[in-house]
Amino acid sequence: MLGIDPGLTRCGMGVVDGDVGRPLTMVDVNVLRTSASEPVPIRLVTIEKGVDAWIEEFQPDAVAIERVFARSDVSTVMGTAQASGIAMVCAARRGIPVALHTPSEVKAAVSGSGRADKAQVTAMVTRILRLSAPPKPADAADALALAITHIWRGGAQSRIEAALLKAGKR
Amino acid sequence: MLGIDPGLTRCGMGVVDGDVGRPLTMVDVNVLRTSASEPVPIRLVTIEKGVDAWIEEFQPDAVAIERVFARSDVSTVMGTAQASGIAMVCAARRGIPVALHTPSEVKAAVSGSGRADKAQVTAMVTRILRLSAPPKPADAADALALAITHIWRGGAQSRIEAALLKAGKR
Repeated sequence: MLGIDPGLTRCGMGVVDGDVGRPLTMVDVNVLRTSASEPVPIRLVTIEKGVDAWIEEFQPDAVAIERVFARSDVSTVMGTAQASGIAMVCAARRGIPVALHTPSEVKAAVSGSGRADKAQVTAMVTRILRLSAPPKPADAADALALAITHIWRGGAQSRIEAALLKAGKR
Repeated sequence: MLGIDPGLTRCGMGVVDGDVGRPLTMVDVNVLRTSASEPVPIRLVTIEKGVDAWIEEFQPDAVAIERVFARSDVSTVMGTAQASGIAMVCAARRGIPVALHTPSEVKAAVSGSGRADKAQVTAMVTRILRLSAPPKPADAADALALAITHIWRGGAQSRIEAALLKAGKR
């Protein structure tokens, strides 16, 4: 599972292996950085290349991307939206499923509270993945948290689907 | 010159040939459409393919894209930002220069007023390109207006740069 915390200046990417009910393992984590002194189109191409390279290398079953809201921080929201669009296209044009999770879904999944702060999310990611040190910066931890969320929610979703199928509701 | 009015549901593309001080000619115009019933990643891939195909076909010297603001219509702004990011990447990864123009710059360039309405912009595009009928829908006219704006402003910008160079200010 590849989790992506999209951003124009820092784009977190985290790969987590595992399944519901089994311990999860961090495969790799990275933060793509682009410089604000470069034109936006060039920065977006850098992000495209970085995401493409990771999809090639890790061949994820799915890509989980943070859902961006129009009401987020106005100064960065456009760049974040553009970076998330690029990440979606990188996955979708290879036929890899894309899932979007809101920040509060991610916080709730890893910490039990949709209002958890960054430190709490980082602490839980470190614990869940049994890391020897907290992943840094926060974008790296967020990307791993997205991957964890998708594995856990995906599992729950699949069980609900299976139950509905069995009950003849689908 | 390829002008792109980005959007997730309708993405206008207009190709205009010409230079400052010469009559401009419309080469082609099209509106890419994607269905709201499809997942966003799939819609963005459709836009990527459409923009790529036009860049391949018309080999523009530059691509002019409408600048999207975070304070625009909240319900569509994220999709518009994502579509504009895709259009930027399509051009930038081929090394084609990308220019962003605000809606008011475009209105001012084609109509003389930054507050012109859609009907006025369409009327002026029809006149400037000597078309027998107004381009429809508005996204098509907007894309052509972007291409016209970039040709005219690009020319002015080049003349200013040249004058500054001559005056030893650069």
